[in-house]
Amino acid sequence: MKKLINSPETVLTDALAGFAAAHPELTVDLDQRVIARGTRPGTPKVAVVSGGGSGHEPLHGGFVGPGMLDAACPGEIFTSPVPDQVLAAAQAVHTGAGVVLVVKNYTGDVLNFRLAAELAEEEGIEIRTVLVDDDVAVEDSTWTAGRRGTGATVVVEKTTGALAERGATLAEVAAIGKRANAASRSFAVALTAATVPAAGKPGFDLAEDEIEVGVGIHGEPGRRREPLRPARELAAEVVDTILADHDLTAGDEVIALVNGLGGTPLLELYVVYGAIHARLAERGITIARRLVGSYVTSLDMAGFSLTLTKADPQLLDLWDAPVSTPALTWS
Amino acid sequence: MKKLINSPETVLTDALAGFAAAHPELTVDLDQRVIARGTRPGTPKVAVVSGGGSGHEPLHGGFVGPGMLDAACPGEIFTSPVPDQVLAAAQAVHTGAGVVLVVKNYTGDVLNFRLAAELAEEEGIEIRTVLVDDDVAVEDSTWTAGRRGTGATVVVEKTTGALAERGATLAEVAAIGKRANAASRSFAVALTAATVPAAGKPGFDLAEDEIEVGVGIHGEPGRRREPLRPARELAAEVVDTILADHDLTAGDEVIALVNGLGGTPLLELYVVYGAIHARLAERGITIARRLVGSYVTSLDMAGFSLTLTKADPQLLDLWDAPVSTPALTWS
Repeated sequence: MKKLINSPETVLTDALAGFAAAHPELTVDLDQRVIARGTRPGTPKVAVVSGGGSGHEPLHGGFVGPGMLDAACPGEIFTSPVPDQVLAAAQAVHTGAGVVLVVKNYTGDVLNFRLAAELAEEEGIEIRTVLVDDDVAVEDSTWTAGRRGTGATVVVEKTTGALAERGATLAEVAAIGKRANAASRSFAVALTAATVPAAGKPGFDLAEDEIEVGVGIHGEPGRRREPLRPARELAAEVVDTILADHDLTAGDEVIALVNGLGGTPLLELYVVYGAIHARLAERGITIARRLVGSYVTSLDMAGFSLTLTKADPQLLDLWDAPVSTPALTWS
Repeated sequence: MKKLINSPETVLTDALAGFAAAHPELTVDLDQRVIARGTRPGTPKVAVVSGGGSGHEPLHGGFVGPGMLDAACPGEIFTSPVPDQVLAAAQAVHTGAGVVLVVKNYTGDVLNFRLAAELAEEEGIEIRTVLVDDDVAVEDSTWTAGRRGTGATVVVEKTTGALAERGATLAEVAAIGKRANAASRSFAVALTAATVPAAGKPGFDLAEDEIEVGVGIHGEPGRRREPLRPARELAAEVVDTILADHDLTAGDEVIALVNGLGGTPLLELYVVYGAIHARLAERGITIARRLVGSYVTSLDMAGFSLTLTKADPQLLDLWDAPVSTPALTWS
């Protein structure tokens, strides 16, 4: 295992300390493991909080800031944050208008966020939960009942964060998050497996010419293994797989996230983006907005995922709203 | 070789087509291979143009936009753009106030940009060249006379771009670029070699526990090979190597770029950043501004580079100026 770490035991602590030093505009509680905005809103607003296992950076800490998350709570590598940690994140940023929890659909996360929600409600903090379950690859798995939550998390966090910023109610912010999730589908292809530091070796074995189609962001098995093919063919297959599961039709617009899984350079992501753009154009679907980069990663895994969100004027307006976070910034 | 490409022959063409589709706010000439801003300035301003071999994305095309480059011209993978291409980039964006060419110090680039400058001058376009040579690892190499140009390119492009935006003269913009370069030093460590698509195999061999210290962004040999060590020790060695070659002293401030080389995930870069921050603090040096991410890459190489620029009020002011490009945006 070749990694830039001090030890498998301290990787999260060390990375969080580095994150805190690199982002003095945020408040990082290294004991509680909560990343929060550095300034409190002047008037009460709905807080948007997310979290999940680490190893998916910049998700979620990289999306904390004006226009997106109020706080994030990173668990150990590929491990849900504990309920007390989620509670601490909610407590750190709630201002009386309630808290929306954005939760990726994995059994551990769902359980721990539910417990945290109960604890918060007991303290008088009103909670709504938005579950993200966009991955069309598998229904149920070793990690999940139902579909896995992956790239759509970025769209859900961006749109809920933007609406909360505008002073919407708790119900409205939760509703837009659920709508953004329902409008989104994702699918991923791995060229290599991720190596969890504590394990010290890749999570699965792939032959030199083999890829895992439909892989999860923890290296969960996909639909099948097949030979590596030209990016154009892979991209077409990924687009077609998503469209088979989506209500997109000719004339529709989408927000597209072409996402690197951690070990894939930007040059390759642009090759993939071009192929996805072309395939969608053949189907009469236009990419209205896009991100090309590594936003929801799986440690050092090489590969990419595609997330397509069916766009409408409200979602596009919220997508375009100003955002200022370590990983996503526009005005 | 496992890469998301269509073929080694078309990788640059395909990536540029994808880049053009992903960034409709820019003008991409796919025949000339010139990436330029989508809108022309209202009044004449100095244009800042850069370029170099591809495989270092987001450098340079990802830095085209208001507040930074006016145009970029990407060569083939690890190969300088040709003189006519550089000329076309200068012609595309000059408005009568002259053009600053930012050139990384590699023999091919220096030669081709010099020829392009001569051609442009013949056409009445006034040219100044800023040579970037910040890598302290080696003096002369198979690719270079003198030091190699690496991470400081980001600082040079940001500060020249910001000053040009404010209406400074050609001499002033060139002068700030030279000053930013002179204030910068870099050093890189590779955990793996990059694989050039046309070669189909890694550029050099490293054992499972071995790293290349002082590596170049084309995989040029560094100072030595040594066993992989904890990130803390590597970071300290890199900081100390740079400080030994820099005039930084206790009390100074720096702009720090902790840069991934293409195959290293953000989690690891934050571990490295924390260690660099701590080592500099021990020496009494404060990081006033920083970037943590993959900005000057070497295809899929795993590893990192550190660039330290001695800060002063003018450089910090130009660094903080608004920028809106695919890879760097703030307001």
